[in-house]
Amino acid sequence: RYGYFGQGVCLMFLKVSGCLTDGKIFLSASGEDMLCVHTRDSEGIGMLKKDNVEVVLLTSTNDAVTQSLTEKLEKLTGCEVMAVGEEPLQEVQAVVERKKLDWKDVAYMGNDASDASCLSLAGLSAVPADAQEGAINAAKYTCRLDGGVGALREFAEHVVQQKEKAKSQMKQDRIDRNNF
Amino acid sequence: RYGYFGQGVCLMFLKVSGCLTDGKIFLSASGEDMLCVHTRDSEGIGMLKKDNVEVVLLTSTNDAVTQSLTEKLEKLTGCEVMAVGEEPLQEVQAVVERKKLDWKDVAYMGNDASDASCLSLAGLSAVPADAQEGAINAAKYTCRLDGGVGALREFAEHVVQQKEKAKSQMKQDRIDRNNF
Amino acid sequence: RYGYFGQGVCLMFLKVSGCLTDGKIFLSASGEDMLCVHTRDSEGIGMLKKDNVEVVLLTSTNDAVTQSLTEKLEKLTGCEVMAVGEEPLQEVQAVVERKKLDWKDVAYMGNDASDASCLSLAGLSAVPADAQEGAINAAKYTCRLDGGVGALREFAEHVVQQKEKAKSQMKQDRIDRNNF
Amino acid sequence: RYGYFGQGVCLMFLKVSGCLTDGKIFLSASGEDMLCVHTRDSEGIGMLKKDNVEVVLLTSTNDAVTQSLTEKLEKLTGCEVMAVGEEPLQEVQAVVERKKLDWKDVAYMGNDASDASCLSLAGLSAVPADAQEGAINAAKYTCRLDGGVGALREFAEHVVQQKEKAKSQMKQDRIDRNNF
Repeated sequence: RYGYFGQGVCLMFLKVSGCLTDGKIFLSASGEDMLCVHTRDSEGIGMLKKDNVEVVLLTSTNDAVTQSLTEKLEKLTGCEVMAVGEEPLQEVQAVVERKKLDWKDVAYMGNDASDASCLSLAGLSAVPADAQEGAINAAKYTCRLDGGVGALREFAEHVVQQKEKAKSQMKQDRIDRNNF
Repeated sequence: RYGYFGQGVCLMFLKVSGCLTDGKIFLSASGEDMLCVHTRDSEGIGMLKKDNVEVVLLTSTNDAVTQSLTEKLEKLTGCEVMAVGEEPLQEVQAVVERKKLDWKDVAYMGNDASDASCLSLAGLSAVPADAQEGAINAAKYTCRLDGGVGALREFAEHVVQQKEKAKSQMKQDRIDRNNF
Repeated sequence: RYGYFGQGVCLMFLKVSGCLTDGKIFLSASGEDMLCVHTRDSEGIGMLKKDNVEVVLLTSTNDAVTQSLTEKLEKLTGCEVMAVGEEPLQEVQAVVERKKLDWKDVAYMGNDASDASCLSLAGLSAVPADAQEGAINAAKYTCRLDGGVGALREFAEHVVQQKEKAKSQMKQDRIDRNNF
Repeated sequence: RYGYFGQGVCLMFLKVSGCLTDGKIFLSASGEDMLCVHTRDSEGIGMLKKDNVEVVLLTSTNDAVTQSLTEKLEKLTGCEVMAVGEEPLQEVQAVVERKKLDWKDVAYMGNDASDASCLSLAGLSAVPADAQEGAINAAKYTCRLDGGVGALREFAEHVVQQKEKAKSQMKQDRIDRNNF
């Protein structure tokens, strides 16, 4: 049997810069810096929540602008925002363990070579089409769209579909076991 | 006889996010969030008004940023802005009935699968080139251009042309009836 | 003899929305609306000035956002900003006459069907690659680049070249007249 | 032996407008103008610093908006920002001499014809894919990506690789000298 067959993804980690956004930051002299998010992607987060997937946004401790928008991002998406260092695996692993989850029930979306280990471990993982090669090679799914213009929505739909498939497979397995 | 042949479209519903805009929202820490509109598209609204088409802008109740710009959008376009829930049909249908209009004299532009029923019902309907598949399949016209960079202007020109055609067809029909 | 052979262009009219900018306006709730200009294009204005071409920026009276940025645009470019109505020919013609210029010594850059008459009259005229068909057909030069990302710079280089050519042609003509 | 074989680049000059940014400036009526930087590119600066390359950002004295963001850029990148006139060679040459460096150990990224002499002199030099022809012809490396969307990151990776190669070549040379 191929593809994803976990119990059902219930947690997704999502890099903000380059996945939820297109990676651009708008700088003004006064400090009122800006980020850009596509409503199609914020709707993708809504789809995941409705399907009982908790989404945790990851910002980089190196990226002061995105950090300054933590509150705003929490308000926009209703998701927790977590700062990660250069190698996100450490902080992400801690959350997976604290929540007593198996990596195969975790989804991960990243765009950077430093995301490779998380992309490999996660049951479902994706990169936007414009991600770095190191990330693309590690991810299970490469989005058709770039980051910040619908890649997240695309992955959200993929996750929802895979959960649906896994559920009907489980049902089928139970029928098969009962019949033979 | 093919194509549109209503009395003449006099009302258009237009999704703001992804149709009037490119779907992006610009977030700043202080809350001075921004949207982006193309002057080519705001001119499209002007063309429709001149042709006696009332344009009603639709924002999503889930989209707080666009909602916060309601006043601004009204001032920019001179159009009424109406908030719709996840399934726009309900609120839109109520307006169509209150105005005692036939759906064939209504135009609709949307970009989301949730717009499918309105796109099917409307006499003239369109999606931007970058709309969701569910919306594209339901629309009568797919714009060459993406949302926020001229798709609305393109549809506005289409509506004006179709009204022109319908008018000359009606004239021809009257001549035919008188002659035979 | 083909192409441009005026005395030398000394005045250029330039549409702001869609030629100096990409046509997008950024709206915020508070009214601090924004426009976007490419430094490559503002350098193009510098090239023209250095070549003794006065540049007049045209904004549309229908476009309140661009109008609100008149002062800013004057400061950025050092050019006069003039508001024009739906048909720019009227206001532009008045300036050409007041300055006692011949249209063949005037350059014009526009992107809209309403610019067609000015594009036809001007000795040198251009449209960005993403202009409307009505404008493209009337213009003498179609830029390879879109508005707001270098089209103006491209036309500025074209104008400087054509002036150079015209000058050396005039010199040649004088030599020819003296020799025969 | 082909390609770069200096002692090791330890200084890079980087044009802000069109190389670190996409060249666009966002204008607002109040003066809170903005620039846009890609986190992928600001990470590229981090990579260079880690590899002991000092990065100096160059802004143009003609470009008041970018100048007004000097402090912001310094804070974002941790780099010195230096204003250069129409021909950057003069100011850049002064820094190279003051630091007692050889041009072959200097990297330069520019996008304008006026950058040609610096691009020719520098041991490693690059232009974004959307640079001017005069700059492209002078540069040793043409990025696959445009300015402001990853070209700098691409060049940073190239510089780090070339330094690595030069180092292992030097090691090999020492072994060869010892053996023969």
